[in-house]
Amino acid sequence: MLYVIGIGPGNEEFFTKEAENILNSVDMIVCYKGYKEYIERFQKEIYVNGMTKEVERVEYALNQAKNKTVALVSNGDATIYGLASLAFELNEKNFEKVEINVVSGITSASICSAILGAPLNHDFSVVSLSDLLTPLEKILKRIICAFESDMILAIYNPLGKKRKEPFLSALEIILDYSKDRNIDYVIGIVKNAGRDKQEYKITTINGILENLDYYMDYIDMSTTLIVGNSNTKIINGKMITPRGYLSKY
Amino acid sequence: MLYVIGIGPGNEEFFTKEAENILNSVDMIVCYKGYKEYIERFQKEIYVNGMTKEVERVEYALNQAKNKTVALVSNGDATIYGLASLAFELNEKNFEKVEINVVSGITSASICSAILGAPLNHDFSVVSLSDLLTPLEKILKRIICAFESDMILAIYNPLGKKRKEPFLSALEIILDYSKDRNIDYVIGIVKNAGRDKQEYKITTINGILENLDYYMDYIDMSTTLIVGNSNTKIINGKMITPRGYLSKY
Repeated sequence: MLYVIGIGPGNEEFFTKEAENILNSVDMIVCYKGYKEYIERFQKEIYVNGMTKEVERVEYALNQAKNKTVALVSNGDATIYGLASLAFELNEKNFEKVEINVVSGITSASICSAILGAPLNHDFSVVSLSDLLTPLEKILKRIICAFESDMILAIYNPLGKKRKEPFLSALEIILDYSKDRNIDYVIGIVKNAGRDKQEYKITTINGILENLDYYMDYIDMSTTLIVGNSNTKIINGKMITPRGYLSKY
Repeated sequence: MLYVIGIGPGNEEFFTKEAENILNSVDMIVCYKGYKEYIERFQKEIYVNGMTKEVERVEYALNQAKNKTVALVSNGDATIYGLASLAFELNEKNFEKVEINVVSGITSASICSAILGAPLNHDFSVVSLSDLLTPLEKILKRIICAFESDMILAIYNPLGKKRKEPFLSALEIILDYSKDRNIDYVIGIVKNAGRDKQEYKITTINGILENLDYYMDYIDMSTTLIVGNSNTKIINGKMITPRGYLSKY
């Protein structure tokens, strides 16, 4: 039996009871090496490996799950950029199949929204800027479509040390819509959300462009951005997207 | 002090430790009357009211929070279609302001994704079909944009007893893209996700249209839909969107 479990950002307070109970009950835990610190407290047998070794990691977990109860742990939610779909795909190829259960966790967009105030309080899109598995053209089209239809946009994996182009292209798209519509879109930037050293900044597209070198250095792979819709505003230093109650009632 | 807390679908297993700890510590809990059953176990003073009374509910919570610690409870996440932004907006208007802290919860898209398999395993949009606070035209544009850019789409509040038009219009859009691209989009339908009487069905846009009367009756306000992208498939009865590892590695 394989559980694919989302643990949220990692700190104990963001685990659901469901995830906590299952992790206490399994025989072994498999995860990315960077997340080992978050699951050591369960005192289970642990298998970890590194980035780009996801296929090997999931194969290992499936193999162990033939005669053990195994938890394959993902950061955030188990499905949102997690390893759940890969587990189903590889299981399908195997002669001996195992039962797979998926356990939800809190995704970064939720945590960041709470930290920033309430920016994610209307229709939204979630897009990863990592072009390792997705063509950049497709990613940018999604960003254009989010702005075209005035959705809030959560951006995952914005900048890698060697991957600057997707972020710069995304900023260009936001700037184009900003000029066209005369809206200085509010942008919330959260670093290490829900972890030690958590910090955040709330600025706008023009604020970022005016200090581009600073933000290119500040934003990294542990950062999530939330770009507001046309109604998003800053209230007392927090980023808020009205749901529409006050204009309606 | 006001906490705006997301409790997920309601059942105890989906509460985070953070939500659990805070709800155990507050003086009173304020929520929609339909959610009272999920917070009675904390044995706190409770204030509830009904649908469309959100402004009054939040005003009451802010008022009580002047000299008590109050939890304003939202279903799912506190910001995703929740009451967090309204709390910040109303607080700003008040002469005597209170401190507001937002606490994330698991949103329906995450829970439904886990129930269905792993459909939410790539870039996605979340759109509510409720046109009470948002013009229908704007909602439909967002659905068009999600399909135009091949994002997965989670649909909240799909059908009300008196609100059929948004759902029928959304189906028309999906059908148009389905014909244009020759893709029978996979659709997961989850009812009472994470609650008693939870059930789900996995079908396609053509499957829904062939039994439209049945689905119009089946789908209600306690239902969330996830519509796949062009790569989403059904594997062993589960709905899976590949992240792309197998084509890459």
